[in-house]
Amino acid sequence: MRRAGRYPAAFTMRVLILGGDGYLGWPTAMRFSARGHEVSVVDNFSRRHWHEKHGTDSLTPIRSLEKRREAWKEVSGKELASYVGAIEDAEFLERVIIETRPEAVIHYGEQPSAPYSMANREQAVETQYTNVIGTLNLLFFLRDHAPDCHLVKLGTMGEYGTPNIDIEEGFIEIEHKGRSDTLPFPKLPGSLYHLSKVHDSNNIHFACRIWGLRSTDLNQGVVYGTITEEIQRHPGLINRFDYDEIFGTALNRFCVQAAIGHPLTVYGRGGQTRGFLDVRDTVRCVELAMLNPPERGEYRVFNQFTEQFSVGDLAEKVKVAGAKLGLRVEVQHLPNPRVEREEHYYNAAHTRLLDLGLQPHLLSDSLLDSLLEIALQHRTRIREDVILPRVDWRATHNRRPTRPDA
Amino acid sequence: MRRAGRYPAAFTMRVLILGGDGYLGWPTAMRFSARGHEVSVVDNFSRRHWHEKHGTDSLTPIRSLEKRREAWKEVSGKELASYVGAIEDAEFLERVIIETRPEAVIHYGEQPSAPYSMANREQAVETQYTNVIGTLNLLFFLRDHAPDCHLVKLGTMGEYGTPNIDIEEGFIEIEHKGRSDTLPFPKLPGSLYHLSKVHDSNNIHFACRIWGLRSTDLNQGVVYGTITEEIQRHPGLINRFDYDEIFGTALNRFCVQAAIGHPLTVYGRGGQTRGFLDVRDTVRCVELAMLNPPERGEYRVFNQFTEQFSVGDLAEKVKVAGAKLGLRVEVQHLPNPRVEREEHYYNAAHTRLLDLGLQPHLLSDSLLDSLLEIALQHRTRIREDVILPRVDWRATHNRRPTRPDA
Repeated sequence: MRRAGRYPAAFTMRVLILGGDGYLGWPTAMRFSARGHEVSVVDNFSRRHWHEKHGTDSLTPIRSLEKRREAWKEVSGKELASYVGAIEDAEFLERVIIETRPEAVIHYGEQPSAPYSMANREQAVETQYTNVIGTLNLLFFLRDHAPDCHLVKLGTMGEYGTPNIDIEEGFIEIEHKGRSDTLPFPKLPGSLYHLSKVHDSNNIHFACRIWGLRSTDLNQGVVYGTITEEIQRHPGLINRFDYDEIFGTALNRFCVQAAIGHPLTVYGRGGQTRGFLDVRDTVRCVELAMLNPPERGEYRVFNQFTEQFSVGDLAEKVKVAGAKLGLRVEVQHLPNPRVEREEHYYNAAHTRLLDLGLQPHLLSDSLLDSLLEIALQHRTRIREDVILPRVDWRATHNRRPTRPDA
Repeated sequence: MRRAGRYPAAFTMRVLILGGDGYLGWPTAMRFSARGHEVSVVDNFSRRHWHEKHGTDSLTPIRSLEKRREAWKEVSGKELASYVGAIEDAEFLERVIIETRPEAVIHYGEQPSAPYSMANREQAVETQYTNVIGTLNLLFFLRDHAPDCHLVKLGTMGEYGTPNIDIEEGFIEIEHKGRSDTLPFPKLPGSLYHLSKVHDSNNIHFACRIWGLRSTDLNQGVVYGTITEEIQRHPGLINRFDYDEIFGTALNRFCVQAAIGHPLTVYGRGGQTRGFLDVRDTVRCVELAMLNPPERGEYRVFNQFTEQFSVGDLAEKVKVAGAKLGLRVEVQHLPNPRVEREEHYYNAAHTRLLDLGLQPHLLSDSLLDSLLEIALQHRTRIREDVILPRVDWRATHNRRPTRPDA
C-alpha cells in the first residue's frame, strides 16, 4: 500500500482523466503527459453534444479529440490513450478501470453548468443522474479493482453558498452546548447542479469512511483563461473557450462581450462575491493534489481558488482593460435570473494548496489583455444571441430554441 | 394562498400518499381516510417485488392493495383512490399530481433499507436513483401544478449519524471566528440509503428556498409495532411486519427471534443508540405535521421519535418480556456487519412534534407482549434463514441467493 506524503519529483503514475476532452480535462491531460505520467482520458463528448443541440459553440475552434491526440503526439512524442463512453454506463466504466489500473483518477466527468441544470426538469434529472450515479459507479469500481487509487474529484466553491461565517476547507469544528466535534461544513448550494456536487461529496466521504478509499475533493472557484504552457505548443491543441449563457464563465463572457461592443451583463447588483482562479492554476492544483495523496481512508477537501472578486469588480476590470485597447465597454445590470444574495459576507479559506506549494497566477492586466485579444481574434465566430440569460431560476420551463435537427 | 398555522379540527384535505401500500403508508392512508380527508395512494409494489425476488415475506399475511381497499370500504364506507406506478416515471407522476391536485403529499415512496442499498452496486444505484430522482420529479411537478401543496417527506434520524454534539432539529446556530449563522445541521449518514435521504433533504430545502415550495422533513427514528386503531377493524387490513435482515427493523426482528427460540442477534457490542417510536406515533406525527403546515418557502425539520435506546437495551427488554411468556431468550453478539460506532454520545432534540401536541406511546411491557404474541401467532410463517445478516458494509458484493424464477 502506498503511503501518504509527497512523491519524489521523478515519480510517474498511471492517471485516468474523466472528462479529458473538456475545458479543464484537456489541459490537465497534456500537462500530466508532458511530465511523464501514463495518461488515459475518458469522455463521451457530452459538452460538444450539448453545444450542438443548442446551436452554440466554443469561441475558439477546437479539434476533435482524435486530432488533438495526434497533434499532441506530434509535438511531444507521447501517446494519450482514450476511451469514448459515459461513466453512467457501468459496464464501460468497469472495463476502463480494469484495463487502465489507475493510481490516480482525476474526475472532471460531469455536467458542469448551473443554468443547464435549472432550465427544466429533464436537464435537472440528467445533471443529477450523470453526476451522482456516474460518481457512485466510479466509487464501486475503485473499491473493487483499484482500492489504493487516489480519487481527485472536482467539486465547486458553490457547494458552500454564501453563509454569514468564514468558509473553511470542508470541515468545521463546532462547539455546541458544552461539547465539540469536527463535522462537514454545512452547505447551501445555489442550483441543482451545485446540489449534485454536494451529493457527490457526501457519497465520496462515505466511501472513504466505510471502504477505506482515499480522495481529495477540490472545491474549485470560477475558472478563467484558456491557455496553458502545453496548449501553446501547437494550434491543434487549442482549448475550449465558452461564452454562452449556459457554459460560459463570467470573466470569459465579459471579454467576449467587450470584443463585440456588447455591454457586460452583470446579473443584479453585482455584489455577488466568489473565488476565482486561472486555468493554469487549476491544472497545477490538481497536480499538487495528485503528487501529495492522502492516506487510505482519508477524505480531504481543498478550496481551490486564488482570489475573491465580486462580479461587479470583474466587469470594472474588463472595462478598464478594454479601454486601453480602444474598446468602448459599458456595464449593464440585468434583472438577476438566479436566486442568490447580491450583497453578502464572503471569506473563504484557501491555504491548503498554497501549503503544498501553489504559486498563484493572480488576475493581471496582461492576462486580461490576452483574453480580450483572443476574443477579438475570433470575433467573427461570436453569436451575440446566445449570451443573454434565458434560464430563470424561478421558472421550471426554460427552453432555448434548439436546432430542429439536433 | 393558504396561511400557516393549525387548521380547524373539521378541516379536510386532498392528500396524496406516495408508498401508500407500505408499512407506514398503509396505516397512514386509513387514518386520514377515517378522518374525512380525500386520500389517494401511489405505489409500484416495489417492496412486495423485492421480497419476492429474495424469497422473503412479511411475517403477517398481507393482502393485495386492491383487497385492502375493498376491506377498508367495507368497514368505513370510504374509497381510497389508487395509482399504480413509480415516481421515477415522470409521465406517470405528472398525471397523478394533475389529477389529484393534492393539498398535502405524504412521501413514503422510497427504497427504505440500509442493507439493501449496501448489498452491491446495482442496488446502491437503484436506491439513489429511485429516491433522489423520484423526489426531484415530485419537486418539479409540485412547482408546476401544485405550488401551494405541503410536502411531508419521510427522512431518517440516520441522516445525522452519531456526532459528538447534541443533534438539533435540522438546523444549528454556529458561532465561528466572531460571526454566527444558522445553517443546516452537518450530516454523517451511515449507508448509501441514508445518503439518498440526505440528498433528498438538500434538494427539498433548495426547492423551498428557490421556488417557494413548503415542506416538512420528518427525520424519523426506527419504527416498531404493527397495529393501529384502523388496522384492528378488519382482518383484511392487517399491516406488514418485516423481520428479515433487509427490511426488518431491530425490535420487530428481536420479537420474531424470541418466538422461535433463536438468539436475539445484536450487531457488535450493542451500544449503538438510536431514536425509536411506535407505528401509531408515526401516523400521528405525520398527521400533526400535515394539520400544521409551514409557510410558503419554508423548509422545516422535525426529529420524529419518542425515546432513545441502545440496541443492547432493546434486546434486554425483549428477553425479559419473553421470559414472562415462558420463552427462553438468549442474546447473541454477532460481528458487526455495519461500519458504525458501537459506543458513542447520543442526544437528539425532538420537541417540535411534542409542541404540536404529540402524546407518545412509549415502549411498554404490554406493547412488547403484543408484538411477541403476533410473532407466536404467525410462527409457522417464519423463515429462520433470512434473519442473519449477510450484507457486509465493507464488501461491495453481497448477493443473497435469489429465486431462479424471480
